Amino acid sequence: MADPRFFRAAGPFTVAELAHLTGAEIGGAGQSGLSIGDVAPLDVAGSAHVTFLANPKYAAAFGASKAGAAFVHPDQAHKAPAGMTLLLTANPYIAFARAARRFYPAPRSPAGIAPSAVVDPTAVLGEGVAIAPHVVIGARVEIGAGTSIGANSVIGDGCIIGRDCLIEANVTVSHCLMGDRVTLYPGVRVGQDGFGFAMDPSGHVKIPQLGRVRIGDDVEIGANSTVDRGAGPDTVIGAGSMIDNLVQIAHNVVLGRGCVMVAQSGISGSSRLGDFVTVGGQAGITGHLSLGDGVRVGGQSGVTRDVPAGGAVGGSPAVPILQWHRQTAVLNRMTRKKDQ
Amino acid sequence: MADPRFFRAAGPFTVAELAHLTGAEIGGAGQSGLSIGDVAPLDVAGSAHVTFLANPKYAAAFGASKAGAAFVHPDQAHKAPAGMTLLLTANPYIAFARAARRFYPAPRSPAGIAPSAVVDPTAVLGEGVAIAPHVVIGARVEIGAGTSIGANSVIGDGCIIGRDCLIEANVTVSHCLMGDRVTLYPGVRVGQDGFGFAMDPSGHVKIPQLGRVRIGDDVEIGANSTVDRGAGPDTVIGAGSMIDNLVQIAHNVVLGRGCVMVAQSGISGSSRLGDFVTVGGQAGITGHLSLGDGVRVGGQSGVTRDVPAGGAVGGSPAVPILQWHRQTAVLNRMTRKKDQ
Amino acid sequence: MADPRFFRAAGPFTVAELAHLTGAEIGGAGQSGLSIGDVAPLDVAGSAHVTFLANPKYAAAFGASKAGAAFVHPDQAHKAPAGMTLLLTANPYIAFARAARRFYPAPRSPAGIAPSAVVDPTAVLGEGVAIAPHVVIGARVEIGAGTSIGANSVIGDGCIIGRDCLIEANVTVSHCLMGDRVTLYPGVRVGQDGFGFAMDPSGHVKIPQLGRVRIGDDVEIGANSTVDRGAGPDTVIGAGSMIDNLVQIAHNVVLGRGCVMVAQSGISGSSRLGDFVTVGGQAGITGHLSLGDGVRVGGQSGVTRDVPAGGAVGGSPAVPILQWHRQTAVLNRMTRKKDQ
Repeated sequence: MADPRFFRAAGPFTVAELAHLTGAEIGGAGQSGLSIGDVAPLDVAGSAHVTFLANPKYAAAFGASKAGAAFVHPDQAHKAPAGMTLLLTANPYIAFARAARRFYPAPRSPAGIAPSAVVDPTAVLGEGVAIAPHVVIGARVEIGAGTSIGANSVIGDGCIIGRDCLIEANVTVSHCLMGDRVTLYPGVRVGQDGFGFAMDPSGHVKIPQLGRVRIGDDVEIGANSTVDRGAGPDTVIGAGSMIDNLVQIAHNVVLGRGCVMVAQSGISGSSRLGDFVTVGGQAGITGHLSLGDGVRVGGQSGVTRDVPAGGAVGGSPAVPILQWHRQTAVLNRMTRKKDQ
Repeated sequence: MADPRFFRAAGPFTVAELAHLTGAEIGGAGQSGLSIGDVAPLDVAGSAHVTFLANPKYAAAFGASKAGAAFVHPDQAHKAPAGMTLLLTANPYIAFARAARRFYPAPRSPAGIAPSAVVDPTAVLGEGVAIAPHVVIGARVEIGAGTSIGANSVIGDGCIIGRDCLIEANVTVSHCLMGDRVTLYPGVRVGQDGFGFAMDPSGHVKIPQLGRVRIGDDVEIGANSTVDRGAGPDTVIGAGSMIDNLVQIAHNVVLGRGCVMVAQSGISGSSRLGDFVTVGGQAGITGHLSLGDGVRVGGQSGVTRDVPAGGAVGGSPAVPILQWHRQTAVLNRMTRKKDQ
Repeated sequence: MADPRFFRAAGPFTVAELAHLTGAEIGGAGQSGLSIGDVAPLDVAGSAHVTFLANPKYAAAFGASKAGAAFVHPDQAHKAPAGMTLLLTANPYIAFARAARRFYPAPRSPAGIAPSAVVDPTAVLGEGVAIAPHVVIGARVEIGAGTSIGANSVIGDGCIIGRDCLIEANVTVSHCLMGDRVTLYPGVRVGQDGFGFAMDPSGHVKIPQLGRVRIGDDVEIGANSTVDRGAGPDTVIGAGSMIDNLVQIAHNVVLGRGCVMVAQSGISGSSRLGDFVTVGGQAGITGHLSLGDGVRVGGQSGVTRDVPAGGAVGGSPAVPILQWHRQTAVLNRMTRKKDQ
């Protein structure tokens, strides 16, 4: 279904292959040998497509779908149209995501170094590394096998980049130790000086920023986001964290595993987030705070105090989310009254 | 008046030429042959300059101006000093803008491909296309006549770019179909993956993003702004929309014609804006919303519900603008009382 | 202490040299000839390190520190452990910052022009200028002695850049007059068109932006921040101002000396800040305002009115900071009551 100017589907794969890939059980019409050529939404899928039902509110569309196969929870299987082959799984959306990834794997550039790239002779590149035109690779840089560096990107002296990473175009990285399978989208800036200086009426005095940025495996950082290196300790992005576009991460910040930061959010210096913390769009977290595992920060909120594990906060300054809802309700009530 | 290091005025043009260009009628001293060498503000303009009066509060400065000619509404013409040639028009600011554009047209680079640019042999470039140094143009890209691509910019495989576009330096474009006369300012990122993944404690699973970005004619996108491509449907920027710096537009967002987004504002996935919607600075719009034609969103507000055509909202969460003004008034009253 | 992959300390320096550098007096054990090899925090410093005590709450760690030398206020000197050489000064943090800067001076690239750089023959480069690979320098550009331009950066026609500036990688500069010792971090955009157009239902009409950007000495601008050039007047960044990442500065804005703008804050067109104004993270200042010397703007606040010198404001819309604290207190009280 995707525009062939930009995308080419791998495959086809049989239902059996997709079941094996995702751990789903085959049910419904049970045609395990059915050849599937692409993924598609419920309403446009045809007999050679696989689709999914995750949200029960789309059950009617599911019942009317012409898809050859579908990922679906066993509890919803009875809503399938006759003749559809089912891929039964506890989490149809995750399974569909894995299947879609199989049809459309992350793009990979052909290995090799573009003639216009400038690679320091002391840099060490693993097997299958792809270096695009006009890239600059500094001294003593190490790049793991299968990693690709996009056009016009710049990797500073001494950086270590893991295997199968995708650094897109126009990215700048310095002072960084990066794990495997990391994706940096275009325009990301990693490793520059943190915002550290001693304020003084005769002229602010810059404090040398002597830490690094450590990025765990499977991290993604969105377009034009910025991650400053530590002032002495490191700035750390935990494995599997997903960072959206235009996000700011200041020096010494530590993100745990699997954190999610939505676009235009920011964290000030030295704050620490536990695992699986989610930060809404345009939210801000001031410096030197601690947010426990699983904390949820609402969009546009401003966190100025520690939040214990499992907490949810909203508003600016942020308060527990239920209290914040009451604040907005009270204000609405007071000001609606005035209309009468 | 502009610094000749950076700007060179075209012209001179006669008053008659400016009248013809803008549809204004000549009045006042009526010297249609007067040679005008530049545009200038009311207070510094001289006899070879054209100026304008748009806001009646500057009528005194208008009366004292030494400008040779001025765009002015017929109702204000009687405030002109003797000897000034008038260019009478219902919208003096628009007319002045068009005249200024005539003196200072958008810069255009000389046609040709810089030797250091890397252009895929399958790319098709129209007449007069200018490709600056270190640009990278991917496979099967099509670029319309008169378009200019700035230094170190990267255009990904398959993109189609219209005529007379201005892509400035250090820009990244991929998965994009672009109209004519589009301007992308430095550092813009268009077409990268949207922020789509299935959250899972064992590791978030990325959803392939299989849509495109479609940009209409006459769109401008400001420095370091980011526009993600669609997840399956396209992300769409309607013709004539003006987007400021550091703006985030997520996957599947649809902007109508003539929308205005001020700096650091953002729109989450799949929200749809009608025509001529204006979004204030640092405002945010959450996902899957619909904002009708002509909606106005106040600066820093956070829109969490649909807004019907013509509506105006403010605050976070956003409420109708009058209610929001009452909210701030009530809060001010309550807290001022406490001082007594 | 810093990772030698990325940092190499200058030195060693004697205590006497550090005292001379910072204006501190030698006290405590008084070993002016002691050789100091590095800076370090109180808890990890050893006998060849210099540390500091600025915040009295760390006095216990200071008393237990094994550092050979420490910057400290004379009033706190009695808390030092026996055997430590003291560097007595009224502002230990500033003194330590200067010492740290001596050990870790700003990085400087070797002079010379990379073969892949494209430098217009009319550009004038001072002594010791370093031009990295794939840089593009436009016509009539002037660059002062000792300045370094990072890889893939683009300097537009006519720009003047002072001495000992550090322009990092992937930066775009146009229409700019820059002082000495300015640092632009990766991805900064300076000098592009401001967001100026006449709104019109038949299509917004762009107003030519005919001003420049003037940047004073010792300014720093953070990664991916954007500074638009003036519309007619100039945009001005006063000497010694420190601007963090992802900050937006619109056309005609004037910052005084020593201003501080924290990440993701923004200023709309034509607003003027006095000297030493501080703007918190994600704060916004609307257009055409005047903020006096020393004004403090709280994080995420939205300034919509002038603020006199010395004022402090918070909230959106911003009010005097004490009133804002009362607003949040009142709201908290009203909504906590509801729990009972």
